[in-house]
Amino acid sequence: MTEPSTTTDRWAIKIEYDGTGFVGWQRQNNGVSVQQLIEDAAAKLVGNHPVPSITAGRTDAGVHACGQVIQLDFPLPSTLDARQIRDGITHHLKPHRVVVLEAARPAPDWNARFSATWRSYRYTILNRPSRPALAEGQVWHIRRPLDAAKMHEAARHLLGQHDFSSFRASSCQANSPLRTLDLLTVRRDGQFIIVDTKARSFLHHQVRNMVGSLQMVGYGAWPPEKMAEILAACDRRKAGPTAPPDGLCFMNVGYEPDPFQPLS
Amino acid sequence: MTEPSTTTDRWAIKIEYDGTGFVGWQRQNNGVSVQQLIEDAAAKLVGNHPVPSITAGRTDAGVHACGQVIQLDFPLPSTLDARQIRDGITHHLKPHRVVVLEAARPAPDWNARFSATWRSYRYTILNRPSRPALAEGQVWHIRRPLDAAKMHEAARHLLGQHDFSSFRASSCQANSPLRTLDLLTVRRDGQFIIVDTKARSFLHHQVRNMVGSLQMVGYGAWPPEKMAEILAACDRRKAGPTAPPDGLCFMNVGYEPDPFQPLS
Repeated sequence: MTEPSTTTDRWAIKIEYDGTGFVGWQRQNNGVSVQQLIEDAAAKLVGNHPVPSITAGRTDAGVHACGQVIQLDFPLPSTLDARQIRDGITHHLKPHRVVVLEAARPAPDWNARFSATWRSYRYTILNRPSRPALAEGQVWHIRRPLDAAKMHEAARHLLGQHDFSSFRASSCQANSPLRTLDLLTVRRDGQFIIVDTKARSFLHHQVRNMVGSLQMVGYGAWPPEKMAEILAACDRRKAGPTAPPDGLCFMNVGYEPDPFQPLS
Repeated sequence: MTEPSTTTDRWAIKIEYDGTGFVGWQRQNNGVSVQQLIEDAAAKLVGNHPVPSITAGRTDAGVHACGQVIQLDFPLPSTLDARQIRDGITHHLKPHRVVVLEAARPAPDWNARFSATWRSYRYTILNRPSRPALAEGQVWHIRRPLDAAKMHEAARHLLGQHDFSSFRASSCQANSPLRTLDLLTVRRDGQFIIVDTKARSFLHHQVRNMVGSLQMVGYGAWPPEKMAEILAACDRRKAGPTAPPDGLCFMNVGYEPDPFQPLS
């Protein structure tokens, strides 16, 4: 499914969803997955023929997306255009909180996973005494005041190429713990602490594990320099807890060239 | 209930809620109101004695708040402090998406409604082809591209003191249609159009009715100058439709002095 195909009509779609209540991207037997919803909705556009999908990156249960990119291989012959793909799949996704934002026919050798040159994520913390009402399910609620400037200082120690074993889930299936972190910033926006990050790829739970350590710095349990020490230890037990999925959002994926062109 | 009382312990609280599924602020027989939830939660703090409330301004069904101010009159003798009020009511509001953000003991003659010197609201439009997923229930979804700059130009015609009859609900109970609009701005933030407004007070549905006309300008049906014409007509039928409640959020209320002091 990853090589150019002459027997299918390959499409790239960009999707947004609220991950609350889903088991994550990947199909599983124990609940509703986003993959299952997308593939089923796409199949309805073509007489219920199967439409296999590949994602630029998986998401865990409860994680959200506002720019996850998916590859769909429709059966030939196909006469669908970008607007029909976008609006048709979105229609069949009702009443779920999953929509298609964009659709594009990519270059023949494009692959949602292997052609991606970067992925970006945002992690949002609600930092105030009272639990979230409006943002329920979409933030990590931390009562203790966090120092965003100190968290940002700590984050700088993780930039660049490192062995990220200290921030890697035991379930991670990547061949190597080496990753190159291109962006990791922390800023306060009112009651929210916003963590933005970008890399060619991430290890499993890497973002949530980095945030779990950054919040330790944020409330003063650790100095910012501790982050370099944790990284050097290459030991998951030295780092902070895994931040909950609620605050995480898969923001965007980079391709060169970008298959997505503006649609009205 | 509006005069200073020596028989009750008066508190000011600031609340946030997702209005989806509620009948609005005011108690009604046909569904769950925010007032009922707040009064019931407050009563639980004091052995289920009634705790009457007064709001700085009502909200309609489906409208949200992130800074609505409420007056609560607890029975004497009371030994509650601000943290107990905030956290205790918030606790008893579970599992509803309603929380207390702040609590303060105001000056003796303070009244949530009559002491307010301004109210501010934000209206959020999601302007893109696909329906909202992450922001479902918290935005007005408009597919047609809107020109925020033109909407902002139109908004300027409504600033100052005017007879706002053209933007007034037929159910409005205010004595006069005269209001002074201190702020009405429109800007784009990515896929969102943000309308911010502030006035001493608003007529019933005034914000939603103003937004309903601004979006007519936004998609080019009306020129910005039409707003002055609508205003001068003093006729609700000349203005645009009432925007749906989903996009509206009651942001904040002003008092001099402000009873709310930072709590940790």
